[in-house]
This record gives sequence, structure tokens and C-alpha cells, in this order.
Amino acid sequence: MGDREFLERAVALAAEHSADGDCGPFGAVLVKDGRIIAEGWNRVVSGQDPTAHAEVTAIRAACEALDTHELKGCTLYSSCEPCPMCFSAAVWARVDRIVYAETREGAARAGFDDDRLYRALQDCEPGRLVRMEHLPLASATRVFDRWLENDERIDY
Amino acid sequence: MGDREFLERAVALAAEHSADGDCGPFGAVLVKDGRIIAEGWNRVVSGQDPTAHAEVTAIRAACEALDTHELKGCTLYSSCEPCPMCFSAAVWARVDRIVYAETREGAARAGFDDDRLYRALQDCEPGRLVRMEHLPLASATRVFDRWLENDERIDY
Repeated sequence: MGDREFLERAVALAAEHSADGDCGPFGAVLVKDGRIIAEGWNRVVSGQDPTAHAEVTAIRAACEALDTHELKGCTLYSSCEPCPMCFSAAVWARVDRIVYAETREGAARAGFDDDRLYRALQDCEPGRLVRMEHLPLASATRVFDRWLENDERIDY
Repeated sequence: MGDREFLERAVALAAEHSADGDCGPFGAVLVKDGRIIAEGWNRVVSGQDPTAHAEVTAIRAACEALDTHELKGCTLYSSCEPCPMCFSAAVWARVDRIVYAETREGAARAGFDDDRLYRALQDCEPGRLVRMEHLPLASATRVFDRWLENDERIDY
């Protein structure tokens, strides 16, 4: 199987699970060494979890399958360009590559605000989408100091 | 309790759970109507889940506690400025407000790449962090068409 086939599988998951209207129209698969190791689809409404986008659920399932918190050597195939949450999750997961079919503009046409989120981040204006307040606390800085002093810490 | 007390609780969670070195030094709480409804802390390594940042785990727990996929009327308190994944998760969850103590620069000092992610998104250069490939598929566009045609769909 090649890129096109893996991406078609992600699209098939989107089609299958969104047919009833209670899962958003998004699917994703994670591939390592030419094999699908995990599949995901949008479960925001059905699973009552706003973070359960297709890519995030696929990343979680892949980490469980591989017994690790890192997905080096994996490619994420998504039926649609990942939103900033999913893109960031893929970066944190250290995937090698992301391949996607539909775009953020397509998602906007289907009623999903991904582009609005991208624009707020691009313009460094997160406050346009949600009120943000910075309240510095010495205790919070001490937590980081202690982390750096701790030789037992597991960096990731 | 006011902002400062709720934020100190988020910091206390960060301190408590990172003391052993296997949970990252981040904590968060979600508050509605003056009461803490959920708490979260970083479980990336301990839970083998790269998406298990403090804010994401708190958002998931709050949705479970309130039996909903939306957190309108809630404030998210985080020991540190949310990374783009957590910020986006908070936007998707429709929280009213985010209050944070440490900053992305503080996180960088402690060894966490949040600022690098913010900069890639700001510069519209996601490819700097992970290889991105767009492979348009007619099947993916059809999934969105069918979604829009489906009167049973639950918009969110």
C-alpha cells in the first residue's frame, strides 16, 4: 500500500462514521513500516470530548498499540488538513510526516472553524477567540526550578 | 475562592505530580460557577499519551463530569500558558476564559518546545516542524458534501 491507499482508508473512516450525523466527517490512520497501526475518527459529540478529533484519537490509539508516548517513524494520514490542535498533537507525538486530503478551507465550507483558529495563532491574537489573562505566580516559577533541579526527571 | 486561589490549585497539582520526575511540571483546573469541576496534570510519559497535557486532561475530565462536549461558562486555570494544542482544545471546548501563571518562555527554559510550535504556526510554516503533504482526493470532498446534505447531522 502507498500514500494514496492509506489516505483513502482515512477518508473511508470519515465517511463510515459520519454517515449517521453524530460523528464529525473526519478520519485518520497512523502508519509505521508500511502497516496501519491505528485508526481514528471524530468522536467529539458521540464521545463527549472536544479533543477527540480523528487525528488525536488515532495518535492515542497508536501510542497504546506501540506502548510508547512517541511516534517517531510514523506517518499520519488524515482525511482533512489537521487543525492547530491536531497539528500540534502530531508534533508533540514526533510523527515523521503528515499527509492530508481536504483542506482547512474545505473544512470551513463544511462548518468547521479550523481556519479561524489558524488565523488567530498566525496573528498572535489568541484573545480574539477566548479571553486570556496572565497572572504571574512565584509558585509556578518554583515548579519549573524544581523540575530543572530534579535529576530523576524524564525529559520528553 | 478567586482567580488567584484557583490558579494556585493548578500550580499545586503541577508541583505534586511532577515531584517524582515522570509527569511534566504542569497542572490545570476547570471552574464553573465558582467551583472546581475538574483537575488535570501532565501525563504524557506516565500515561503514554502525547496529548495528555494538563489542560487537555482537565478539559476531558470536565466534559465527563458535566456530561457534555462543551464547556461554556467555564474558566480554565493553567500553571503555564497553554501550548497551541491546549489553547486550541480550549477554543474547541468553548471555555469562556483562560488564566495562566508561567509563560511559554518559562516553559522553554524548563525544556518544553511550546514557543517553537507557536512560531511555526505564526509564520505559517508547519513544515518546519513536520513534513506536510497535501494529496487531494475527490472522495474526501464527497465526505464533506454528504455531511452538508445530511439533515440529521449534529453541528458543533
